Amino acid sequence: MTQRYAVGLDVGGTDIKAGLIGDDGTVAASAVRPTRSSRGAAAVLADMAALADEVIVRSGQDRSSVVGVGIGFPGPLSPSRGVIFKPANLPGFENVPVRDELTRLTGLPATLDNDANVAAYAEFWVGAARDVRDMVMFTLGTGIGAGVVIDGRLLRGHFENAAELGHTIVQADGRPCSCGQRGCLEQYASAAAVARRAVEALEAGEGSVLLNTPGGWKAITCREVVAAAVDGDAVASRIWDDACRYLAIGCVNVQHAFNPAKIVLGGGASAAGEPLLDGVRRHLDRQRWSLIDDTPQLVLARLGNDAGIIGAGGLMLEAAQAGATVDRWRG
Amino acid sequence: MTQRYAVGLDVGGTDIKAGLIGDDGTVAASAVRPTRSSRGAAAVLADMAALADEVIVRSGQDRSSVVGVGIGFPGPLSPSRGVIFKPANLPGFENVPVRDELTRLTGLPATLDNDANVAAYAEFWVGAARDVRDMVMFTLGTGIGAGVVIDGRLLRGHFENAAELGHTIVQADGRPCSCGQRGCLEQYASAAAVARRAVEALEAGEGSVLLNTPGGWKAITCREVVAAAVDGDAVASRIWDDACRYLAIGCVNVQHAFNPAKIVLGGGASAAGEPLLDGVRRHLDRQRWSLIDDTPQLVLARLGNDAGIIGAGGLMLEAAQAGATVDRWRG
Repeated sequence: MTQRYAVGLDVGGTDIKAGLIGDDGTVAASAVRPTRSSRGAAAVLADMAALADEVIVRSGQDRSSVVGVGIGFPGPLSPSRGVIFKPANLPGFENVPVRDELTRLTGLPATLDNDANVAAYAEFWVGAARDVRDMVMFTLGTGIGAGVVIDGRLLRGHFENAAELGHTIVQADGRPCSCGQRGCLEQYASAAAVARRAVEALEAGEGSVLLNTPGGWKAITCREVVAAAVDGDAVASRIWDDACRYLAIGCVNVQHAFNPAKIVLGGGASAAGEPLLDGVRRHLDRQRWSLIDDTPQLVLARLGNDAGIIGAGGLMLEAAQAGATVDRWRG
Repeated sequence: MTQRYAVGLDVGGTDIKAGLIGDDGTVAASAVRPTRSSRGAAAVLADMAALADEVIVRSGQDRSSVVGVGIGFPGPLSPSRGVIFKPANLPGFENVPVRDELTRLTGLPATLDNDANVAAYAEFWVGAARDVRDMVMFTLGTGIGAGVVIDGRLLRGHFENAAELGHTIVQADGRPCSCGQRGCLEQYASAAAVARRAVEALEAGEGSVLLNTPGGWKAITCREVVAAAVDGDAVASRIWDDACRYLAIGCVNVQHAFNPAKIVLGGGASAAGEPLLDGVRRHLDRQRWSLIDDTPQLVLARLGNDAGIIGAGGLMLEAAQAGATVDRWRG
């Protein structure tokens, strides 16, 4: 059987990434452009279509082997309707029918999914959880996204907005979140939360090597806090350990809700590597229940920045395999 | 097509309930005996088998129309292996192969599931969530059990122990739980937690009509706290409202994790009725996010004490329909 391909598009506030993804999960070609969403949705959509064409041409594959374009986009959105609701970092995309617009521009079937779901699907398909059927991935960045795979299928839920685990509450009436709730996990364990805690500590007059951060300590990032914690800085260690403690609570809650075989930690903050894995594991060992041993294996993501394009392409390939999308377009 | 039946057994620390359940969810006959687990597992198993025979005979249905015996039992347990691990309220059942023992005693195929999962399946099948495909049920009693149905299928998870939502953490380093964790939902919102808070308040010298509880205030139950709260007692109102606040957090977390169409409140404490529904809804309205409107509908369970036998029978009928169990026994 000849190999089939799908374009995977990973749209974020900063960049649009594109790849031509084989049905074995390999990346045959890739390309990237800045998003520059201030230009408006039409210009961004035109760039998405141009990038799709570009990776097909670059790969040297025949266009007839390409089943469609899979799109990963910041939510909330509707996969079944192919419409974006109101992404926080991409103004101008409110209620835009991104899936059908891409089809109009490329002449190819398209699928649309939440970016965190897409990344989780990639790690399930050919990444850190390729050996299991049930997995949950946390995407640690400015916020905390998540994706859930149950018995090999991505969980979407009745309202198509499942797996928003960054907005599960881990502290009753805790810190206010931009979503309108209080005590959301992402207010305690996201990269942005770690950086904010560090700035607050220095503003309160605490002594730390973080005061010497190049570029000024008000611009501290999570990466610098982790580095200082690894070097033994007391303030950075306390802040980083607290984030790991809350991430461990997130893992306990995933264990009892979904009971997956693996939990994958991905996203920008997962570049911290072993200090992240060790920190969360230590708190997980301390906090978990003693009734039975059903703790999921905790692992780091493997696909890095390619997770988005691989997962988006993979979900398009899955939809084509299932026949639904292809039939809609060929029938 | 002639109607098919399954025996449903609902085993708890106090009673064994049995019913003959039709494939339309009706209860053709039922019976109950005290569990008296101090007699040992063999005696309880013999009673379970006797009750199964009793409801078949009472119903007047031919034994050939009975596809098997579905069993709901306190977990943790393994549905696939049919074995109980270590139920807290049923000493003597550690590692007992209950499913195969029932088959040996009755000559019928059997299935085994966690009691909270069984009740949730009943409400999904013919109860308060019969009109949706995605639902979550909380069973509010001494502890808090839960069951999750996704696209019409009961969620079991890789370790077969999913939906233990009473042990998700809603307060970091909060109240200690018998499971070994801290801050579990059931330490804040179970019937036992409500009663405990009331006793603590009275011990601390607070004034309340609960001091006049017949039988002495150290034996206060959740039911009496709710009644006093409805009558306007300040201490009871505060304690009940706090339980509803934490249940609302449990609902927010279910919304973001599973995104179901409905959340069903069942179990003994759901007999509180409107004061429960109103209390949780009020806090849900206050606490929920503002990004999109994907709040599940909150409803009371409808099947009451029959949920266990109906769900257990229903899961046996489903397994027989799927062919797996029947083939194993007839093949």
